[in-house]
Amino acid sequence: MKTKQPFVFLMAFALAAGVQVASAQAGGADDFKPSPYNQPGSQYPQINSEGKVRTRILAPDAQKVQLDIGAVKYDLVKNEEGIWIGESAPQDPGFHYYQLNIDGASVPDPGSMFYFGACRWGSGIEIPSNDQDMFAVKNVPHGQLREVLFPSASTNTSRRAFVYTPPGYEKETAKRYPVLYLQHGYCENEYSWPMQGRVNLIMDNLIAEGKAKPFIVVMTYGMTNEIQFGRLRDFDIKPFQTVLVDELIPFVDTQFRTLANQPNRAMAGLSMGSMETKAITMNRPEVFSHIGLFSGALYQPEEVKNKSSIKLIFQSTGSKERPDAVKKSTEALKQSGINATWYVSEGTAHEFHTWRRSLHQFAQLLFK
Amino acid sequence: MKTKQPFVFLMAFALAAGVQVASAQAGGADDFKPSPYNQPGSQYPQINSEGKVRTRILAPDAQKVQLDIGAVKYDLVKNEEGIWIGESAPQDPGFHYYQLNIDGASVPDPGSMFYFGACRWGSGIEIPSNDQDMFAVKNVPHGQLREVLFPSASTNTSRRAFVYTPPGYEKETAKRYPVLYLQHGYCENEYSWPMQGRVNLIMDNLIAEGKAKPFIVVMTYGMTNEIQFGRLRDFDIKPFQTVLVDELIPFVDTQFRTLANQPNRAMAGLSMGSMETKAITMNRPEVFSHIGLFSGALYQPEEVKNKSSIKLIFQSTGSKERPDAVKKSTEALKQSGINATWYVSEGTAHEFHTWRRSLHQFAQLLFK
Repeated sequence: MKTKQPFVFLMAFALAAGVQVASAQAGGADDFKPSPYNQPGSQYPQINSEGKVRTRILAPDAQKVQLDIGAVKYDLVKNEEGIWIGESAPQDPGFHYYQLNIDGASVPDPGSMFYFGACRWGSGIEIPSNDQDMFAVKNVPHGQLREVLFPSASTNTSRRAFVYTPPGYEKETAKRYPVLYLQHGYCENEYSWPMQGRVNLIMDNLIAEGKAKPFIVVMTYGMTNEIQFGRLRDFDIKPFQTVLVDELIPFVDTQFRTLANQPNRAMAGLSMGSMETKAITMNRPEVFSHIGLFSGALYQPEEVKNKSSIKLIFQSTGSKERPDAVKKSTEALKQSGINATWYVSEGTAHEFHTWRRSLHQFAQLLFK
Repeated sequence: MKTKQPFVFLMAFALAAGVQVASAQAGGADDFKPSPYNQPGSQYPQINSEGKVRTRILAPDAQKVQLDIGAVKYDLVKNEEGIWIGESAPQDPGFHYYQLNIDGASVPDPGSMFYFGACRWGSGIEIPSNDQDMFAVKNVPHGQLREVLFPSASTNTSRRAFVYTPPGYEKETAKRYPVLYLQHGYCENEYSWPMQGRVNLIMDNLIAEGKAKPFIVVMTYGMTNEIQFGRLRDFDIKPFQTVLVDELIPFVDTQFRTLANQPNRAMAGLSMGSMETKAITMNRPEVFSHIGLFSGALYQPEEVKNKSSIKLIFQSTGSKERPDAVKKSTEALKQSGINATWYVSEGTAHEFHTWRRSLHQFAQLLFK
């Protein structure tokens, strides 16, 4: 027994030293590590076990540098080398947009990767979560994520879409697949689901585990009526409905081996995308059978126009949003005889981790 | 005649006013316009007809803000609203990396799109060129740009590659295609050719014009031997050669409808990628038949090991690099009986416009 004492002592010393350092940083665990989603080779931003974000930037002549995350600005502190460093309060698990503020200029953190959201390409950070394994890169068969340009007569443009094809699509050339059309939120774009949503990895892993049927996922830009950011109330569904239903779907059904019928077509969206999903699935019930509304619109029983052809209505939210409304609406749908399901993402708000989890749940229910 | 005088006068006045404004900005044309490659809705950066870049950023409390482009830093000037604005000297046509400097902090310009180059994701700008039509989005059939993950036993990772499949690939399911393996430069990555190189659009347009045979293009990360940026001299070709030849090529030949033989396989690269191309095509002459060296390595006749199986050696450079060396080496190859071609990009240096043009030329010679 006695031989172990020096080790115990050293451990206690190390812990005490750790606490000391941490208390100099306003409390918390001093176990900050570089995010694996940083720019190649970048040591910052870092995250600790409490979900605090620490940033660092060389700005020798600046007067004030702040980390702006979760709608709070945290002052960084300058050291003798002109490097500013500091950290945020603990953040929810999952993905968050953020930026730096240097003497009044809001700029991306050059250490982070860049994502489109909050109306701009800018910094994003990934706080570790207990279920991040769902989008880990694993040694499983991988699908492909394809960028395609499709012709749109109604907007007189070539428009971009991302198309996920599941593993096996290239080999099983006689097989046809169901399709999910998946929409981003307000001030996001067609890159948001593939990048911060990590759709391809979520699907690869679910399919490898046998939890989801292989299907195609299509993501395009949903703000097509030329509204400027900031005017969501003026949003008119018609221009996007035309692009999606009358232009993109026929293109996908021509270019990909789809099961091109209502029972094998789903639509889902997050936030503004859920409003689009509700509006379009109400307007065109002959097109989609499976409906996913993540953190936004809710279906009421009397709004379901074609009860017999709707196979699933899935409604979800973060626990920090409005779980009661989601449960209530979904229970009412169930009682009216509709196959409806609700899902609440524990510990998350109106952010992408809620929507990844929603997709992860929704995908397991599709086309079965 | 007299009725036209007021118009002539007004025009002269407008020109004089134009000159006045321009001279207040240290000379040049005052016809700055937002770049079409800006962030959505962003009015800056702007470019004028002389190729000057004008940037603008709100930084009310900053002491000094600079535009850092082409290895020169230009001071911006602050107005009463705390907005800094200013412009660069004329830049060469084509694509350039740049950044802002705010009180000593080097950061991306939040108005620009972000590209990987110069060892980081950061700002890039497109100066209009007289041949930018080659990568315009046109109303022609479009191929697909696919992100794939392939297993690499030698590095024990899943690695990313981008694969361009030409228009028609999805429909002509009995057809098999030649493949070009295309490498980025030092401190760039597998995103560089698809993003700033605009490979898919160059190929779509060439194929639509009947100038290039439809072929597949594969792009992956070429710095696989764990060297840190800044140590190019330590570069060992073997680890990447293993990934490319022994792992990626077999994967592509399994997953795509390729013509899986030496006559139908090309390799090209820019700068460091041209060194890789030369080394790998020398080490493995049985794998590739068509070789493209853009702005970097040059083949000498005595280095061509398998003269009868080499169908093409294409060597190129910007006119501001070293055209004489490229011409001399290529003429020597020709005299030794090798099918060799040189190309010089007029008015450009060691930058992506040189390499887009090189690809545009090289692609027209492939697999014919």
